[in-house]
Amino acid sequence: MTAREVFRAVSGGLPDPGDRPAGPAKKSKALGELPELGAELDELQERLFAESDRRVLLVLQGMDTSGKGGTVRHVLGMVNPQGVRYQAFKKPTAAERRHHFLWRVRKALPDPGQIGVFDRSHYEDVLVPRVLGQLAGPELKQRYREINAFERELADTGTTLVKVFLHISPEEQLRRLRARLLDPAKRWKYTPADLEARERWHDYQRAYRGVLRQTSTAAAPWYVVPADRKWYRNWAVATLLLETLRELAPAYPDPGYDVAAQLAELEAAKAVP
Amino acid sequence: MTAREVFRAVSGGLPDPGDRPAGPAKKSKALGELPELGAELDELQERLFAESDRRVLLVLQGMDTSGKGGTVRHVLGMVNPQGVRYQAFKKPTAAERRHHFLWRVRKALPDPGQIGVFDRSHYEDVLVPRVLGQLAGPELKQRYREINAFERELADTGTTLVKVFLHISPEEQLRRLRARLLDPAKRWKYTPADLEARERWHDYQRAYRGVLRQTSTAAAPWYVVPADRKWYRNWAVATLLLETLRELAPAYPDPGYDVAAQLAELEAAKAVP
Repeated sequence: MTAREVFRAVSGGLPDPGDRPAGPAKKSKALGELPELGAELDELQERLFAESDRRVLLVLQGMDTSGKGGTVRHVLGMVNPQGVRYQAFKKPTAAERRHHFLWRVRKALPDPGQIGVFDRSHYEDVLVPRVLGQLAGPELKQRYREINAFERELADTGTTLVKVFLHISPEEQLRRLRARLLDPAKRWKYTPADLEARERWHDYQRAYRGVLRQTSTAAAPWYVVPADRKWYRNWAVATLLLETLRELAPAYPDPGYDVAAQLAELEAAKAVP
Repeated sequence: MTAREVFRAVSGGLPDPGDRPAGPAKKSKALGELPELGAELDELQERLFAESDRRVLLVLQGMDTSGKGGTVRHVLGMVNPQGVRYQAFKKPTAAERRHHFLWRVRKALPDPGQIGVFDRSHYEDVLVPRVLGQLAGPELKQRYREINAFERELADTGTTLVKVFLHISPEEQLRRLRARLLDPAKRWKYTPADLEARERWHDYQRAYRGVLRQTSTAAAPWYVVPADRKWYRNWAVATLLLETLRELAPAYPDPGYDVAAQLAELEAAKAVP
């Protein structure tokens, strides 16, 4: 079975955040595999960039400390920065709130040939307001429909979505929040709002299950990655991207010129006038 | 002397593209230093990102094959992708040409805390049309003035510019163009237009000297990096960025909350409801 099959969100349930349902069971093995995964990712991304036609969009969602930032550093860090378009989505600004919720998302899409990375995304707009009791019923359903239509449109125009829910346990979050508070170099990553979100843990899990149920479509499926182990999460996301790129099978394009003729011209023009 | 002092463009002349006026004279030494440079760059960029206030903008200019792409891969590849905003500027599209030449540039500026990378830039708009005889005299001077005012505005609002001219020799370009034509995996990087630009080598060098003379300001100086040796170019650009970030001296911000109180609240809320 492929990682995409194993991690694909199945209606109605979430795996254990400590599970390792596919791939290496041991950290040393996963770390040993990563350089090779990275080299292949880099090579395939280079071909995608050379084609300059199709796009990949990695959507990273998860509770605070679930490892969105770590995934970007360790997985996307293996690819040429030229081929990566990273965008974080924070709490919408006043200006952003005056627009449709997909407005800022459309502006941040990757260029042809790039892997776009959304660190949070339009899914925040069906998670946060729902948990805060500001969005429910027909309005919530309407946003799900708009998201599905938007992603269908992306898929139809050459963007392959890889939507990943980094699934951690509340116990692991506790350890990571504590570590952030104890390390002066990590305190900037913590805000008191993290604790407010943590207090609504079960509401968020319910909201995430709703998202997985309503927006995991054939055009843009969700993958649920058990993320209590950082090394497993990195291996899993790298492998999901890799399988996606292998299927796209980008190839160096036909140069569109006569190679021999250009070589001859180049040699003839050797001496710069 | 710092690398910034050594490479700073001096009115009226260009160094030999094979020179090594600062730093390691040997490839093995430069390659040996690179990981340490990279680790410090990464650390300083993390602090810049944590501050989320100031920005750095690396502008890469140079003839075809001068190594803009290679610099991005090898130098920016050492930094967290989260902290890098890469933008290539190709020949302006019809839509872009209907706007002021700085319009598309303003849209591509990095977010606070990021290092923006321009692979070509607004400088193409005072190089290409000048060489093609479409821009001269008062119109050219006007563009220089607009660029200087724009960069002054960036500097005044917290963006530190690092403008690098990757300076190669026509002999080295010949070798690199030939290599691109001979390698099927590199042919997509070559277009017949490269040869047309090569035929105007001296015109481009003159146009570059004009750019260096007219737009190397106190607010946004140009650096000329001899780029015939790839390892030297990588060392030089990494060092220019590093010196810039060291001077900015970004620091992890005050968390803005009471750490002990948050730790206590966190432990109290341990059991997720």
